[in-house]
Amino acid sequence: MKAASLVADLRARKAPAIARAISLVENARAGFEELLSALHPSLGHARRIGITGPPGAGKSTLTERLVQAYRAQGLTVAVVAVDPTSPFTGGALLGDRIRMESIALDPGVFIRSMATRGSLGGLATTTREVCDVLDGGGFDRILIETVGVGQSELDVARTADSTVLVLVPESGDGIQTLKSGIMEIGDLFVVNKADRPGADRLRQEIEVTLGIRQGNAFRHVKAHHGVSATRRLDGSTAVPDAEPPSRRGAEPPSWQQPVLGTVAAKGEGVGDLLAALDQHHDWLVSTGELVRRRRRRLYERTREVVERATRQWIWQESGAEQAIQEQMDAVMEGRASPYDVAALVLDGLKQGSRV
Amino acid sequence: MKAASLVADLRARKAPAIARAISLVENARAGFEELLSALHPSLGHARRIGITGPPGAGKSTLTERLVQAYRAQGLTVAVVAVDPTSPFTGGALLGDRIRMESIALDPGVFIRSMATRGSLGGLATTTREVCDVLDGGGFDRILIETVGVGQSELDVARTADSTVLVLVPESGDGIQTLKSGIMEIGDLFVVNKADRPGADRLRQEIEVTLGIRQGNAFRHVKAHHGVSATRRLDGSTAVPDAEPPSRRGAEPPSWQQPVLGTVAAKGEGVGDLLAALDQHHDWLVSTGELVRRRRRRLYERTREVVERATRQWIWQESGAEQAIQEQMDAVMEGRASPYDVAALVLDGLKQGSRV
Repeated sequence: MKAASLVADLRARKAPAIARAISLVENARAGFEELLSALHPSLGHARRIGITGPPGAGKSTLTERLVQAYRAQGLTVAVVAVDPTSPFTGGALLGDRIRMESIALDPGVFIRSMATRGSLGGLATTTREVCDVLDGGGFDRILIETVGVGQSELDVARTADSTVLVLVPESGDGIQTLKSGIMEIGDLFVVNKADRPGADRLRQEIEVTLGIRQGNAFRHVKAHHGVSATRRLDGSTAVPDAEPPSRRGAEPPSWQQPVLGTVAAKGEGVGDLLAALDQHHDWLVSTGELVRRRRRRLYERTREVVERATRQWIWQESGAEQAIQEQMDAVMEGRASPYDVAALVLDGLKQGSRV
Repeated sequence: MKAASLVADLRARKAPAIARAISLVENARAGFEELLSALHPSLGHARRIGITGPPGAGKSTLTERLVQAYRAQGLTVAVVAVDPTSPFTGGALLGDRIRMESIALDPGVFIRSMATRGSLGGLATTTREVCDVLDGGGFDRILIETVGVGQSELDVARTADSTVLVLVPESGDGIQTLKSGIMEIGDLFVVNKADRPGADRLRQEIEVTLGIRQGNAFRHVKAHHGVSATRRLDGSTAVPDAEPPSRRGAEPPSWQQPVLGTVAAKGEGVGDLLAALDQHHDWLVSTGELVRRRRRRLYERTREVVERATRQWIWQESGAEQAIQEQMDAVMEGRASPYDVAALVLDGLKQGSRV
């Protein structure tokens, strides 16, 4: 079987096999679902780490530094660079990739850019499937970097085990965009270019928004290992974690998102970020959250695959396209509405016949 | 029939009926498709104008000014403010709406904010359907304002007859994000806050990217009415329109996107924008492009409605949800893959039976 031999080559981490498998998946070519299905039982080795944030936050540089640090530990790393807004950023994407060439020559590193296309499955699903290929390929770490703001951040957060939200002092609107939903996306916060003016203020603003108010990053990272009191701005003391200490034995400790400072261009703070990522992974494992996240991902994946396969059935097999085309004159003339035509098509689909 | 009486109340532009109809559509409550189907034959009165651009470009202020100008002409106006990134902007949206209160008290104006939700149909489809309700409600102009950057701009462009892309000198990355795809989105370009430093440069950059190189906005707006030569930077003359004059009789003239300057906060340039919008509408009508755009929209709408109705069938009627839940333990244990389960579900759907 073709899938089986490709799986074997993937496990051996042969670069051509990896590239071929990713192309297969990206283009949804014949056999891609068999491949992913064959990989499924062996998935879960790789730690999936999302790097996200606004344009210009230095995500690519930080990603490069993380790769170097993991390589120094003897770990293999795959980078998936997703740019859901590529029609709007154009050349910028390429620029980032060129900068990464220093690590691209390392055989223990695999870098893949993914651009938005009108794919049947949607970018998020395809990205997850590419990560599966890399996981099946035995990589120890998969870094998923997303350029852009908006829905893509939410999607990457659901792809990764740990999501790093990167901000910079000069992102200006940065803290304004940090309201509500986005705070839940970041498992770890990084203020990059932390040597620039405004970095401390940004960090403080993030901590206020997170409900930490005051303290340094590592006090928060360690908060789930023991109870560490931080001093409030008014001088009183408070436990940063929401749960009272007495309940610690009964319930798993919640994760207090750390706010770290880095200067990625100089490699500063990267070691601390690595340590915080390891701590987050330990937390995921020890609390059972990793299994819960994996189960939710697999559930969502199954739904997505059903929807994608259904769309393929409707538009490429069922004859629905032709049925709509035949009704377009009636729709234009007001004799039929889009809803009338859609109901007609759906009735045909429900009867399992060609409409 | 319920839909019929609601349609009658809508036509009479009774505000409670409009609000009720929009809620019905937004929440996809029972009867919303009948309502939209009943409205379908009478649609097309309203001109749909999209206002889009990066955050902070002053879109809301410009929208407010446009509303005031249309009102001064005795026209009724509906505003649909779409914020596809609302989890990230939070309070900002509300701020804009509060500022619009000056026009919100006018009975000839209707303002509706739409936030992203995990709706069955997707935000773009729902926005188009809300615009249909407003069109059915007899409004002369519908302004669709989108906050955010990315896919949302592409979507709004497909919703509107005329799309205005608003930029500001200080948007910084603005011109960098103007590569490739986005230039086709704007039927009209506005450099807002045109009294600030850098406005002329931004305008020039846009014109260079559009292939105009030199000239002022109104020369370009008028380019399709007659051939106006603009002087190139090197001193030679050139016809801004791509088509040679001799072919004007045979083919419809193409639209040369104007680049206008406004200071929305002071109302400057709004009259020019209004005139340019009218000219674009004339062009849409005279070239048959309006009919083509409408046909494409109705075709896409029909496909969207088919997909939405199919999703509803799958997840709420077919039993697929239960089938997946029952298989989740097998998926977690690696005995079945998401693709195995999806294939099982799809087979059931194709047979028209409950899976």
